[in-house]
Amino acid sequence: MNELKGACLLAQSGGPTSVINASLYGAVKAALADGRITRVLGAAHGVKGILDDVLWDLGKEDPQELSYLPNTPSSILGSCRYKLADPAKDDKDYRRILEIFKKYDIRYFFYIGGNDSMDTCDKVSRFMASSGWDCRVMGIPKTIDNDLNGTDHCPGFASAAKFIATSCMEMSRDAGVYDYPTATVVEIMGRNAGWLAGSAALATLRGDGPDLVYLPEVPFDLQAFYKRAGEVLERKGNLFVAVSEGIRDKNGVFITEYASKGAEGKDAFGHVQLGGLAVWLANELNKTFGIKTRGVELSLLQRCGAHLASRRDIDEAMEAGKRAVEAALAGENGKMAAYTRETVNGEAVTGYALVPLTEAANFEKKVPVEWILPDGAGVTQEFVDYVLPLIQGDCGRTTVDGLPRFTKLKQIRA
Amino acid sequence: MNELKGACLLAQSGGPTSVINASLYGAVKAALADGRITRVLGAAHGVKGILDDVLWDLGKEDPQELSYLPNTPSSILGSCRYKLADPAKDDKDYRRILEIFKKYDIRYFFYIGGNDSMDTCDKVSRFMASSGWDCRVMGIPKTIDNDLNGTDHCPGFASAAKFIATSCMEMSRDAGVYDYPTATVVEIMGRNAGWLAGSAALATLRGDGPDLVYLPEVPFDLQAFYKRAGEVLERKGNLFVAVSEGIRDKNGVFITEYASKGAEGKDAFGHVQLGGLAVWLANELNKTFGIKTRGVELSLLQRCGAHLASRRDIDEAMEAGKRAVEAALAGENGKMAAYTRETVNGEAVTGYALVPLTEAANFEKKVPVEWILPDGAGVTQEFVDYVLPLIQGDCGRTTVDGLPRFTKLKQIRA
Repeated sequence: MNELKGACLLAQSGGPTSVINASLYGAVKAALADGRITRVLGAAHGVKGILDDVLWDLGKEDPQELSYLPNTPSSILGSCRYKLADPAKDDKDYRRILEIFKKYDIRYFFYIGGNDSMDTCDKVSRFMASSGWDCRVMGIPKTIDNDLNGTDHCPGFASAAKFIATSCMEMSRDAGVYDYPTATVVEIMGRNAGWLAGSAALATLRGDGPDLVYLPEVPFDLQAFYKRAGEVLERKGNLFVAVSEGIRDKNGVFITEYASKGAEGKDAFGHVQLGGLAVWLANELNKTFGIKTRGVELSLLQRCGAHLASRRDIDEAMEAGKRAVEAALAGENGKMAAYTRETVNGEAVTGYALVPLTEAANFEKKVPVEWILPDGAGVTQEFVDYVLPLIQGDCGRTTVDGLPRFTKLKQIRA
Repeated sequence: MNELKGACLLAQSGGPTSVINASLYGAVKAALADGRITRVLGAAHGVKGILDDVLWDLGKEDPQELSYLPNTPSSILGSCRYKLADPAKDDKDYRRILEIFKKYDIRYFFYIGGNDSMDTCDKVSRFMASSGWDCRVMGIPKTIDNDLNGTDHCPGFASAAKFIATSCMEMSRDAGVYDYPTATVVEIMGRNAGWLAGSAALATLRGDGPDLVYLPEVPFDLQAFYKRAGEVLERKGNLFVAVSEGIRDKNGVFITEYASKGAEGKDAFGHVQLGGLAVWLANELNKTFGIKTRGVELSLLQRCGAHLASRRDIDEAMEAGKRAVEAALAGENGKMAAYTRETVNGEAVTGYALVPLTEAANFEKKVPVEWILPDGAGVTQEFVDYVLPLIQGDCGRTTVDGLPRFTKLKQIRA
């Protein structure tokens, strides 16, 4: 079975990260290098590009141009939020995918994405097996949220964490600069998992970070928050707070829902996705303490800030892509390339493994509650020891005239 | 008069930048190196620290620690927004400043700041002269807004511009990643001058930037904006817009005031400073086109993002500080260190000059209207040619464990 010849198809899905194109690059290079793979194709906008038969021939791209992929943020093939139906209920999409796979003789399929993508990957893998089409389907993880099961950490997380910690160090110098009391609230992504919000505490560890850091894993109590805020203001004259967009009260109500009720039930911000929490909390602090406050939402910057990407994250993401291709060529199927944490001379280094897609799919890995301080306003040294090794190394990006050099694809249809 | 001996006092004022500490470092090094200056003092929180007699002896700081200043964002001495009265009406503060100057034998005073600070500087200079206290008062410019008169550009502007252009390139990759139409609006600082908003167009020049860029110098028409937005959405399926926080309609009404009226006259954001514009515009685009939209406010990040500072900006800021000290030692008084633009073998290089403080004070230099496109939705090549040379060079920061190394002062009272 190791002699399976045919085309290879790659696709990207879900929210972008700073290194999802590094995984793509690692996979594309490995695929182009192996004689068993006849063509290396990329699907436009994830599984949607397969259904719509929009495939690009990545083998026809300029290798020099492709070499900028590891430092090019977001998903260069495009992304989608399309969720495939349960094949037991409706297999129309799967039959269409099989049709496209047959049309291009696709024998290797690699899907780079998060929870849902690994689920999609698993369903496609099973359908191909049941339909008798010899095809190896592998998942390559990506998510800034770091909430994928079966892997020590996720490609993309460390770079977002590094952006957050660095930005918090910088903002903390700005937030306390005046001679009058101020409060600054920074809102960080992570609806259910606090890996990113907790990373703001790396700045605190350096003496230049948030005084209070709140994760979604533990209930957020507004009155307790005001009490802690008052203590910090009393002690140092200004306050810097980091909150996850997903913090919720003991009844599970998102604090952003308080925010959206701010103006007589109207959504003061008009968009359904989370956001506006920082500004609302800053506003409440202003009303409570009568001081100048500011809300800052890191928003897209934290997931596309490739200029601050961790070198280790980039290298690991490329390796994950490469290993997924090599494993498929060796006969593996229905697995996800995963990271393990090894200790070599006291240093935390990353090992590589394969886990069943089912293990990674549809499960959110959260921050262990014992890694969150008892008062819920910070993280423990264990959390810091987990994250800090992952953010090491400069991204080593190419710049032209002081600005980044990103990959531009010719997008030649297959 | 060139033999004037005594202490030197430095202070920082106004909004922080990424390189205001580089100017401080250039001035401190020059002052410590000259025998005529007996002590090098820093005032806590600008002129407030003088009035409150909170001065630090910078000569007692560790030189190695001071060497991190050029890459340390915000104002390390602290800042203030305190405006001195007109001495003709009320000279109480001035008499107090004179008292402090006499107490510490301060013969050299350097104030690093923007418009208002140069005005303060000028008033102090005149009061010292009229009171017969032999003291040389010099201004060192600083402002991300680049709106100071009498200088080709301002220390701090280029680094903010580089952060904005880089972030816009990165966000443009993220903003257009999905297969469905989306609109992203990014809000940039600059209440009256569009130098920073216009810098987003550097990203557009690279093919990865905002489709539409709006500066405060020309009136903003909401209906014309929707028309242009619709055209872009029609053409490429998604939209990326950059707006200055200060855009206003033909009657001079800030568009943010429309935003604050968004919820039946209530301020939906609860803070008086500008902000919330991006989210409001995104919301309006959502209502107008029925597409997914997102508002992003660069907020503090653009003025404290020292990790993306322009090397040229850092070097020039240090040089401005150094030259102000050298000029004062040579007998100059009541002047501001300024930049000129020279052309050497076709390259734009910075020259240095001294201008009267009165020339820089209380005047906002705006973007020439002829550098803004006729439709008001972008800038000309002249604008790009002005900004691009200024953002060159990597900041060359020191990092420890992947995070920046900032200066920490011992703050030893004088």
